[in-house]
Amino acid sequence: MNHVVLVGGSGYVGQAFQEILTKRNISFRNFSRKEINYYNPAKLKAALSAEKPDALINAAGYTGKPNVDACETDKANCLLGNAVLPGILREVCEDLDISWGHVSSGCIYTGNRTDGTGFTEEDEPNFNFRTNNCSFYSGTKALGEEVLEDASKCYVWRLRIPFDERNNPRNYLSKLMNYEWLLDAENSISQRFEYVNACIDSFTKKIPYGIYNVTNPGSTTAREITKTMTDHGLITKELKFFDSEEEFMSRAAKTPRSNCLMSSEKLSDAGIQLSEVGEAIENACRDWVA
Amino acid sequence: MNHVVLVGGSGYVGQAFQEILTKRNISFRNFSRKEINYYNPAKLKAALSAEKPDALINAAGYTGKPNVDACETDKANCLLGNAVLPGILREVCEDLDISWGHVSSGCIYTGNRTDGTGFTEEDEPNFNFRTNNCSFYSGTKALGEEVLEDASKCYVWRLRIPFDERNNPRNYLSKLMNYEWLLDAENSISQRFEYVNACIDSFTKKIPYGIYNVTNPGSTTAREITKTMTDHGLITKELKFFDSEEEFMSRAAKTPRSNCLMSSEKLSDAGIQLSEVGEAIENACRDWVA
Repeated sequence: MNHVVLVGGSGYVGQAFQEILTKRNISFRNFSRKEINYYNPAKLKAALSAEKPDALINAAGYTGKPNVDACETDKANCLLGNAVLPGILREVCEDLDISWGHVSSGCIYTGNRTDGTGFTEEDEPNFNFRTNNCSFYSGTKALGEEVLEDASKCYVWRLRIPFDERNNPRNYLSKLMNYEWLLDAENSISQRFEYVNACIDSFTKKIPYGIYNVTNPGSTTAREITKTMTDHGLITKELKFFDSEEEFMSRAAKTPRSNCLMSSEKLSDAGIQLSEVGEAIENACRDWVA
Repeated sequence: MNHVVLVGGSGYVGQAFQEILTKRNISFRNFSRKEINYYNPAKLKAALSAEKPDALINAAGYTGKPNVDACETDKANCLLGNAVLPGILREVCEDLDISWGHVSSGCIYTGNRTDGTGFTEEDEPNFNFRTNNCSFYSGTKALGEEVLEDASKCYVWRLRIPFDERNNPRNYLSKLMNYEWLLDAENSISQRFEYVNACIDSFTKKIPYGIYNVTNPGSTTAREITKTMTDHGLITKELKFFDSEEEFMSRAAKTPRSNCLMSSEKLSDAGIQLSEVGEAIENACRDWVA
């Protein structure tokens, strides 16, 4: 891979792409929206034709600040960033025959498969507009995947609750440190830099195009993570847990949250392996940068 | 009402707005997308601040050509036109405190209320992403209404299957003339010019803001309409009807169609009356312009 165009490079995931692409000596250019109005297919096409990348990575998305509750009051921009933009990128990339990848999300699922295992890429989303139980955010991310159905030369990389060793309002470990009350739910999660490396590996290892759950194998809970964080001295206060998801919803949230188990087998079968989730959390705590 | 800004004036409904506003001597300016990129909130705001309209009318939308099947393969643009644009217009109109109205659709319903009557504005849509039985088009129109929930100084005017006396590929009567096979289903429908007059009356009569079903009172079927058309000599060939909606779906359509009954009582209670549907069809046939 000689040259990459990155869309949404200034975001939390996009910054990690910039860092890892630099570290891996892969030439890239960040298309900022100010510089190139990538919502305009004609302008995007002209810019890409001039840039001639081997691949495009879309790390742009609308997540809501400080959390997904904010999406409920900015629905149009949430739709635009999460469902319309992937379609524009698809149109232009297919037109120019460019390989590309889209940062999607595992938040379009809730719970686990009936046999207790994690959802695979074959499973239909069960936390989206069509199942009518979701946050507006999750609804738009699922629509983004619908928009990309049968897209050619396209990776859809599902991220779940990013974390790493650097204190940041978007880091799950930082959130667990800072929230007064926690909800103990089982989740698959994604170490941010492992996630980004896996995405880039999709191109360099030429794995088949399509959807991939890019999560650390296994699952964990807020109680398990905070125990590790306490062991490492990152948390010293006493932790308070909500009694139930209902209590969490009534006291702390405006819109439902996705808590779910994901299977990362398709990715590992394709030859890309993330570290086991407990190990990834242990490492993040060990290497913590405040 | 001294001055109106019209968005989407070049479409089938927009053209009727241009015509009726002219006829009623209401000054207006058509914001064409070429001239003013109304998808950009900052540019729209600047243009509206300069124009200083009393009201804005959004007749822009993505319907698919020749029919809603086309939306299934252009999902991003369908979302952009039907769900994102209303949100952008809302944001800017609320910011500038401008009254405005949005051309929505009754196609977010299927069938009728359990008591056999038409759906009212209080009924939740039952043909949308959330009920997971809809075309992508209907899904986006329903999202457009979600985006406008609790909007201030905003009318949402639901149109259903426009028709009038002028032969046109978008006119329901022309469609009934030209399709080889017809589906006989019961529907509420909207005479295009009566619809547009009712929308404009919303402002001039200062009826309360909110959602209105703007359909001709009553309901009709393809069989009834084509009978009237045959009586008037507009149809001379023998008509062929699908045996069932299933046959229609398997032979003629890619995505489900909305067929539904709407109640227009809220509008008439507010003092705006459309003609009874049979009378409106009779008049269109009588005054037919080929």
